[in-house]
Amino acid sequence: MQRTKRIAAHIVATNKTSYHTMSNSKTQSFTLLENPQGLPTEQTWKLVSSDIGTIQDDQVLVKALYISVDPYLRNRLATAPTNQPTVSGQVAEVVESKNNKYKTGDLIFAYLPWARYTVLKGNEQGLQKLTGLPNNVNPSAALGVLGMPGMTAYFGVKNILQIKPGETVVVSGAAGAVGSLAGQLAKQLYKAGKVIGTTSTDKVEYAKQHYGFDEVIDYKKFDTIEKMRAELKRVAPNGVDAYYDNVGGTVTHALWSLYNKYARVAICGQISYYNNTQLPTVQEWLGKIIYSSVLVKGFVWSDYLVVDGVNQVPTFLKEVGSLVASGKIKFDEHVIEGFENTPKAFLTLFQGGNIGKIVVKV
Amino acid sequence: MQRTKRIAAHIVATNKTSYHTMSNSKTQSFTLLENPQGLPTEQTWKLVSSDIGTIQDDQVLVKALYISVDPYLRNRLATAPTNQPTVSGQVAEVVESKNNKYKTGDLIFAYLPWARYTVLKGNEQGLQKLTGLPNNVNPSAALGVLGMPGMTAYFGVKNILQIKPGETVVVSGAAGAVGSLAGQLAKQLYKAGKVIGTTSTDKVEYAKQHYGFDEVIDYKKFDTIEKMRAELKRVAPNGVDAYYDNVGGTVTHALWSLYNKYARVAICGQISYYNNTQLPTVQEWLGKIIYSSVLVKGFVWSDYLVVDGVNQVPTFLKEVGSLVASGKIKFDEHVIEGFENTPKAFLTLFQGGNIGKIVVKV
Repeated sequence: MQRTKRIAAHIVATNKTSYHTMSNSKTQSFTLLENPQGLPTEQTWKLVSSDIGTIQDDQVLVKALYISVDPYLRNRLATAPTNQPTVSGQVAEVVESKNNKYKTGDLIFAYLPWARYTVLKGNEQGLQKLTGLPNNVNPSAALGVLGMPGMTAYFGVKNILQIKPGETVVVSGAAGAVGSLAGQLAKQLYKAGKVIGTTSTDKVEYAKQHYGFDEVIDYKKFDTIEKMRAELKRVAPNGVDAYYDNVGGTVTHALWSLYNKYARVAICGQISYYNNTQLPTVQEWLGKIIYSSVLVKGFVWSDYLVVDGVNQVPTFLKEVGSLVASGKIKFDEHVIEGFENTPKAFLTLFQGGNIGKIVVKV
Repeated sequence: MQRTKRIAAHIVATNKTSYHTMSNSKTQSFTLLENPQGLPTEQTWKLVSSDIGTIQDDQVLVKALYISVDPYLRNRLATAPTNQPTVSGQVAEVVESKNNKYKTGDLIFAYLPWARYTVLKGNEQGLQKLTGLPNNVNPSAALGVLGMPGMTAYFGVKNILQIKPGETVVVSGAAGAVGSLAGQLAKQLYKAGKVIGTTSTDKVEYAKQHYGFDEVIDYKKFDTIEKMRAELKRVAPNGVDAYYDNVGGTVTHALWSLYNKYARVAICGQISYYNNTQLPTVQEWLGKIIYSSVLVKGFVWSDYLVVDGVNQVPTFLKEVGSLVASGKIKFDEHVIEGFENTPKAFLTLFQGGNIGKIVVKV
């Protein structure tokens, strides 16, 4: 899946004298052809060319450097407007500016169309200068361990799981961008006694060795709720206190009868179902959470962006950034090169083959 | 179902001079013959006679006045020891005491065997003198609106639903002991904008008129998830902010797609499933609570008995007791007379016919 081909950047003017030429240059973008039913394919998008256009007062022109592809996008595609580019998080470089807050060469983060170039207003939603990253990480970390997926892990573990030292924690999707961090935070920041991950066969050993999970269960091997429950019981003989769920399916359902009193369940993703055209049927389990007084909380990262009036990003960058910079927290990027591979990179998410955060290097 | 036959109390000595005779007197109890699969029947229990026995130092002998039958008992029966009496909450009178904390004539609350008489240690779990009830309510209220069911409603609404003025609230089992109070508290203490109940056909009008629900949906009429959802949408056009669930089934599942951001769901009972021999299959819904950031919380009343080190019963009796005493909060008791009808009274819970709290008047 990794491609090394690089897009020739010959249409890009990167010095001030040639800015006036940008307006007549071309850009490319991936527009959504149809709202997919089931698994999307590369044909779900169309690569189109268009003029970049002129930038107005207050605007900036940015060039995409890294495009993020994330599971949450799948839900958006179901209802996103067609014939318009799909939008996701990007790290981009300002190549022309008529906004005095941004200058040429600034790196920014914003939610942008899947396009090589984008003209932006200075107050565009989510637009921010890339600051606060440790010196020894690549800017693409702003899309992963030190960006939205990182905050999803950090906010969920901190605010929902509220792990006490010695507790037993389960994380599904243990080799993914969010799960790998959630497991490490449970152990390093909150001193969990045992952290159990679930992932697919080829990533079991990696998750154990590299991310430090105490136990990792291969969900392909324990492929029914009953088998998964027996294995979870074996590795968590004292019951489970907290569960960080990215995936849904057998792990999630095996756990309902294994929770200790006052267990917490953070529901951040259910990727195993995202391409189902119908909701799957499962056994009802709400009766199981009454006597164990379990808390189940759906959430998205932005729910905890501001807590009691205080923006949490600086605390996140301080706490997690320092662990990342020092190498105590491990993270991986699966870099797929070439803007033209953006849809393919997105589809990789649903093949269960990736370790860490998938980004497209434009 | 109501019986007016009273048990002759000729074996009961109620004055001090005859206490010594109690030891040789007989009592009756209902012992569990088998752990029921599916719906229990009257043959699930056996009525047995035995000697009361002598009371020792520190002990008291109590005579059952009111026996509580509650949905939660159904789950206990599945694993309760057989050939022993079923245990539930009771209001009883001290008829003999060798414990200086209790004297003859004291009314007490305790979790006691289904028996006419019980010998108790002074420190028996849950044993407490009946105090703090308003003067104008019958002591049986300690089993209902001012007892465990009342606290279940109050603690769940207060601690989990955390209703803000104007919000839309749904309560299943709206005519039951817990649901009828939960709905009234939502409106009177927390100023909910709209409180919607669900119950069966014959209780719809009563719940509306007597308990003040703004809308009451007949779950027998809207008997699929789709029909129930359409009706809920009609009566809650602005979405639902909080749900107090005693029942499970179609109401619970219709709601997953109707929640507003940050909705709260208190799971206190799932009575519609208690007699299923297998868990029912339902459509998976965890994916629905991610973007709406819904909180789902299983609980039992005792979870909130002590909050931050402070026992909450006095606050409960003050807040709810005063509303009950003044008649602002309505409650009903369905009194079934005669100790011998205790199993029958319990089975009434699963027939959907009762309004308010079912108690056996011994």
